[in-house]
Amino acid sequence: MPAAIDFYFDFSSSYGYFASTKIDALAARYGRGVNWRPILLGAVYKVDHELEVLKLPLKGPYVMRDIARSARFYGIAYKLPARFPIPAVAPARAFYWANDRDPALARNLARSLYHAYFVEDRDISSQEVTADVAVAAGMNRDEVIAALNDIGVKARLRREVDAAIQRGVFGSPFVVVDGEAFWGVDRFDQIERWLAHGPF
Amino acid sequence: MPAAIDFYFDFSSSYGYFASTKIDALAARYGRGVNWRPILLGAVYKVDHELEVLKLPLKGPYVMRDIARSARFYGIAYKLPARFPIPAVAPARAFYWANDRDPALARNLARSLYHAYFVEDRDISSQEVTADVAVAAGMNRDEVIAALNDIGVKARLRREVDAAIQRGVFGSPFVVVDGEAFWGVDRFDQIERWLAHGPF
Repeated sequence: MPAAIDFYFDFSSSYGYFASTKIDALAARYGRGVNWRPILLGAVYKVDHELEVLKLPLKGPYVMRDIARSARFYGIAYKLPARFPIPAVAPARAFYWANDRDPALARNLARSLYHAYFVEDRDISSQEVTADVAVAAGMNRDEVIAALNDIGVKARLRREVDAAIQRGVFGSPFVVVDGEAFWGVDRFDQIERWLAHGPF
Repeated sequence: MPAAIDFYFDFSSSYGYFASTKIDALAARYGRGVNWRPILLGAVYKVDHELEVLKLPLKGPYVMRDIARSARFYGIAYKLPARFPIPAVAPARAFYWANDRDPALARNLARSLYHAYFVEDRDISSQEVTADVAVAAGMNRDEVIAALNDIGVKARLRREVDAAIQRGVFGSPFVVVDGEAFWGVDRFDQIERWLAHGPF
């Protein structure tokens, strides 16, 4: 079986959310698995000295419009959250903690967290909200809250973000197939050609 | 006849070059004309305080790889120029000067300039090289050289760049259809839906 795809995303990234609705089906069509790997864009942007895009005077308003239009273009349910963007530390910690116990559960949790934030407008930066979503996904509330504040889980997320940066990840979504990097849901057509026909 | 599309691009932008090979045919399929409007990304980036993307430690190497891969993906002839990027003042001035006399000639000139830079690896930031390309496109060398140094032509380009910034243009290619902005050759699928079915 060919190697799994690495799918990097930030839980606060609209384009990452769009990609999350497509990546598993795309990979499965070519017999590939997917490793979901949440990151924190704030840490990544520091490396490139990138400013928060939504605050740029010209690009910021465009991106807000492009997000909503792209959701309609792809036919993906999307509602601009009242608070956007958010620091996505709690959902990312919850994901890695769950992933060490049950990757399928962690993936369901990730989908539920994205849905909670970008469809139901629930602020998943809150530990309480992330725990609510985790409980609905079948997890134990007390264990989740403990994990979100566990020093080992915190360190685990930092290691994952550092490893992503070492690998060159600078945005969300960011997909690596056979060592080849693709940034943006608008590169899914190129990913599909790679999966279907190999390097080009 | 429906309104023409505005196509903003920098002569030093690889993605702008890719878009230039597609925009006229795309527009023509829906009965639209295209206004070609060269800009200077350096002036635009200042507004957003954007750094030169190719110099960013993480995004820079990715973009270089994405440019070459995207050329292959689209099937467009492309050779990374020995000097890249360049200040594209001379070609932009030549374009607007030609456009006031003969828009069809100016468009041919723009295509020839892009081809000279991104296929033949000729440094079109040089007035001499831009003039060579203009002569091959049927223009008079002395007139072109004079135009490149004419105070009115210089002011004209500055006005065009300022007007683009006022309109929110922050990158290349940047296409405006019926007041709706689309950034990137990877938004041509959304442009096509807009042209075919209207706002979405």
